[in-house]
Amino acid sequence: MIQERLCKLRNSMQAAGMDCYLIPTSDYHDSEYVSSFFMVRKYFSGFTGSAGTLVVTKDEAALFTDGRYFIQAAKELAGTEIKLMKMGEPGVPTISQYLEMVLKEGENLGFDGRVVKADDAKNYEEILSKKHGKIIWDKDLAEEIWEDRPALLHHPVSILEECYSGESASSKIERVREKMKAEGANVHILTSLDDIAWLFNIRGNDVESCPVVLSYVVVTMDEVLLFAKEKEKQSRSEDGSDEIWTKELCQYLEENGIKLCFYEDFYAYVSQIHGKKVLLCKGRANCRLIKELCEDVTVIDRPNPTTLMKAVKNQTEMENLRKAHLWDGAAVTHFMYWLKKNVGKISMTEVSASAYLEGLRETYDHFIEPSFSTICAYGANGAIAHYSAKEDACEEIRPEGMLLVDSGGHYLEGSTDITRTFILGSISKEMKEHFTLVLRALLNLKNARFLHGCRGVNLDIMARQVLWEKGLDYKHGTGHGVGYLLSVHEGPNSFRWKLLPDYQDNAVLEEGMVTTDEPGIYIEGSHGIRLENELLCRKDEANEYGQFMHFEDLTCVPFDLDGVEVSLLTDVDRRNLNAYHKEVFEKLEPYFEGEELEWLREVTREI
Amino acid sequence: MIQERLCKLRNSMQAAGMDCYLIPTSDYHDSEYVSSFFMVRKYFSGFTGSAGTLVVTKDEAALFTDGRYFIQAAKELAGTEIKLMKMGEPGVPTISQYLEMVLKEGENLGFDGRVVKADDAKNYEEILSKKHGKIIWDKDLAEEIWEDRPALLHHPVSILEECYSGESASSKIERVREKMKAEGANVHILTSLDDIAWLFNIRGNDVESCPVVLSYVVVTMDEVLLFAKEKEKQSRSEDGSDEIWTKELCQYLEENGIKLCFYEDFYAYVSQIHGKKVLLCKGRANCRLIKELCEDVTVIDRPNPTTLMKAVKNQTEMENLRKAHLWDGAAVTHFMYWLKKNVGKISMTEVSASAYLEGLRETYDHFIEPSFSTICAYGANGAIAHYSAKEDACEEIRPEGMLLVDSGGHYLEGSTDITRTFILGSISKEMKEHFTLVLRALLNLKNARFLHGCRGVNLDIMARQVLWEKGLDYKHGTGHGVGYLLSVHEGPNSFRWKLLPDYQDNAVLEEGMVTTDEPGIYIEGSHGIRLENELLCRKDEANEYGQFMHFEDLTCVPFDLDGVEVSLLTDVDRRNLNAYHKEVFEKLEPYFEGEELEWLREVTREI
Repeated sequence: MIQERLCKLRNSMQAAGMDCYLIPTSDYHDSEYVSSFFMVRKYFSGFTGSAGTLVVTKDEAALFTDGRYFIQAAKELAGTEIKLMKMGEPGVPTISQYLEMVLKEGENLGFDGRVVKADDAKNYEEILSKKHGKIIWDKDLAEEIWEDRPALLHHPVSILEECYSGESASSKIERVREKMKAEGANVHILTSLDDIAWLFNIRGNDVESCPVVLSYVVVTMDEVLLFAKEKEKQSRSEDGSDEIWTKELCQYLEENGIKLCFYEDFYAYVSQIHGKKVLLCKGRANCRLIKELCEDVTVIDRPNPTTLMKAVKNQTEMENLRKAHLWDGAAVTHFMYWLKKNVGKISMTEVSASAYLEGLRETYDHFIEPSFSTICAYGANGAIAHYSAKEDACEEIRPEGMLLVDSGGHYLEGSTDITRTFILGSISKEMKEHFTLVLRALLNLKNARFLHGCRGVNLDIMARQVLWEKGLDYKHGTGHGVGYLLSVHEGPNSFRWKLLPDYQDNAVLEEGMVTTDEPGIYIEGSHGIRLENELLCRKDEANEYGQFMHFEDLTCVPFDLDGVEVSLLTDVDRRNLNAYHKEVFEKLEPYFEGEELEWLREVTREI
Repeated sequence: MIQERLCKLRNSMQAAGMDCYLIPTSDYHDSEYVSSFFMVRKYFSGFTGSAGTLVVTKDEAALFTDGRYFIQAAKELAGTEIKLMKMGEPGVPTISQYLEMVLKEGENLGFDGRVVKADDAKNYEEILSKKHGKIIWDKDLAEEIWEDRPALLHHPVSILEECYSGESASSKIERVREKMKAEGANVHILTSLDDIAWLFNIRGNDVESCPVVLSYVVVTMDEVLLFAKEKEKQSRSEDGSDEIWTKELCQYLEENGIKLCFYEDFYAYVSQIHGKKVLLCKGRANCRLIKELCEDVTVIDRPNPTTLMKAVKNQTEMENLRKAHLWDGAAVTHFMYWLKKNVGKISMTEVSASAYLEGLRETYDHFIEPSFSTICAYGANGAIAHYSAKEDACEEIRPEGMLLVDSGGHYLEGSTDITRTFILGSISKEMKEHFTLVLRALLNLKNARFLHGCRGVNLDIMARQVLWEKGLDYKHGTGHGVGYLLSVHEGPNSFRWKLLPDYQDNAVLEEGMVTTDEPGIYIEGSHGIRLENELLCRKDEANEYGQFMHFEDLTCVPFDLDGVEVSLLTDVDRRNLNAYHKEVFEKLEPYFEGEELEWLREVTREI
């Protein structure tokens, strides 16, 4: 089947004058998750992972993916002609190096410019120019081949009321315009969906796990255009409203000075902008957008102003987040009770346990959906990064070892992301030591006090040092920013130790930013431990040395004391742990009663 | 007197067509300290501090300096027309902003292009071009005015033998050429004196506290030119050698393929380079050098290859450094004994105590000179940054409070930099708490274990967190790189938390790099505490997580336990402190005997 598809693709390539075709995993908006319409790479390769790029030439095909997916990709590509390129392994070329190798003098490279980042396209273009070939970026070859391709669906859109957002769309638009003025721009083009949803206080459901609206935005000094309406929609009322863009929504947009345009008209609009100074973020823009801009347009390449604005949560958002985390914490703690009381007594699997947890979250009115696919990993599965249990191939949970559960919810009051590792019976001395180290690392970071001006790169070692001392590490960042009823992975704040180019995701930590604190230890074939709280950055004392900052803990779920080797805690660790558990008990008490309340008291006891 | 000098300067400015003249504090080589020939700013302003820029226009004169010198500068400028510009204070313009304010349409700015950095000159040029004025960079107006100006002295030069340097000059030159090839350059111009001294294994005495040789270097693929010989030298032998560039030295240079040229001929040489790709570091080059380059020269602006090479000490240098620190540690520890035994019994001042310490260092054969002016600051003076006691105005040291001593030596086996704060009698509870915090901060950083790839910006918080927890801080970096018989302030490694542009002084910590660990607490008008050890970066275990690194402590002097409030130490602090003191005792024992040895045992006791 794959072979047949590749064959069709090669025919189309030839017809289009392409000697090589590149298919990344992306939508038109550089989204982290993509809807099924965009799963072109999966269609042509059979590889179902969330990250990977397929490169097809006349003679060969290669799939590039990272360490998380080596095993899965090898399995899924077996029997096809597609070579697996294990990115980052010694001797494996990068995509650019591979293109340099396979492209012959004068050959052309094709891709859909809407799903390739402008920066990547620029790199490819340099390679092509050396070989005197060209890039053909205006064709999506899947269009003519993929017969039963899912539609590019536009789902219902809702308004996030000001009691949830804390600031009106028109006020946010004004702030963006101020920033445009400061940068000397008179047009701003915004294509990242979470930025758009935040700016207009609208939410949708066009991307999995992220309640955004497929759309593009252009802001000028006197106009705001939202390209989001579906052209082919049949049933449309006289006033232009349809079942998605209802009368109420249209009125809301009008009130905020937003003009609704057709999603399909965006590139045509962009191509007729003349002589303007356009503020946009090249790092997030797609190749097609840049290509469509006329030569008399000056691009001012800056981070989207909305990126920093939406990361700094306002008073309303902070207050709401506290509520969301209380509900979410109660749900996860009820789950912990159920899990620890019933393991070994009733049948449970990774999948059924996830479902039980989701059910608990659903009991709250304002819960909308999980904020990402739950990772529920038993025993050795806990050591597999991004493990995803499948109904037909998942582990039975038994009264021994550990269960790692990384999950979260979208609420009207914000999004949550929490990980706990639960002890289900006897665990080895090493496991207990590892659990204690991970807990110490988490506590150490969350209790940090620092001067304003610090970035994640300064603070990361507060967590990691505890593991580094023992020659251990985790191969992921210590934490990422979290959106408000938006993406659970949101910049520009994070905790990581490696400096990335352009200070990327390494913003100064400001009051109102939410960042996860999630160290871990993963021993392949044995066990995986991760603990994760969300930290809200707050102002502390200001004195002659500057403005001090600290973290307020949003997450409200006990750490499983059955995993703690008390003798390995320092006095400070113990004080911090006891203080947290005291707070957790006080906050969760109203949500528990009877035997369950007694249990809560016990699991949050002082040690 | 100052007024008369300024008057002459204004006459010269007019004659040279300059409406404004700028005098920074620098030599032709961007050195940290400058010899008396270069003290032009001091000559025209009367301000003696080590940092400051004088700007003179037809109508006014302004001196820009930083917080360390506000009090001193105000005093020294009193009675002159020169306005003090307190850099960094609210409402005070930067030099560039000031130039924008005072320069009128079409006016010209003058300076000696050899003492202004290329980067700064570029900024000034942008201002001038806006005002349609020009920069006159080829005149040093002091030449004609300053009658008794000290000569630009060239001192004797010596060869640093390979038993000290660990690598021949020719081998180092080859490494530089490899780097040139990798960068696509065929010429490399080097003007920073410590880089030159390191590259050729030569040492001199042309700059205070830094044993370097006034010179410029040009490396091509088949030539190495050292511009260092004095043209006006009278007594010269037939073979071209003189009392500085002796026959032996000339032979050494020849053996290493180095051609000796006249110091004065450098800019003329540079101006006739044609069509080459020149590797140089713009951030360290002076304006004149860049101006003299022809238009057909392509500048490849990179850090000087020698900067990273010399920071990574080789096996021989590491072994020598251990020796130097042992001798240096013994000297400082003998000083500690003398100080604590004699305070209140014999008369001592900040100046006499410094002299006593220098005398102790001088007893060692291979001691050359102090590596910087000793800071010996009693009581409240300890809180003054860069305090320098003067013979005629220094504090008597009494048996109470604390004495901060920051000093170091140049030895054939390397340079040292160490700070100890000594307790001389009763101190307040707050002082003791502060002393203990500073000690904890130092211990915390020096015992860090980290993955290769970490930079100072990742590690700084290991020291600072201890103070930040208490709402305290020190307004300087936690540490700087240290040269080998070169500058005690050497890049590209350091410990600091603020990210500087271009990753400046923020190199990945490599095995062989030496960095100081020197936290402090300074309470104005009361006390100052700083403790400083030098840390040698070493490889530790390598495993599946990567290459772990740790620090080897070079410094070998007890911390004054009289300042330690043991109840404020954690178990880990106590373990680290005891381990250090055990090592200090074992290493220093051979240098002590009798009563002094017993004292050493006591001050390095386990607590």
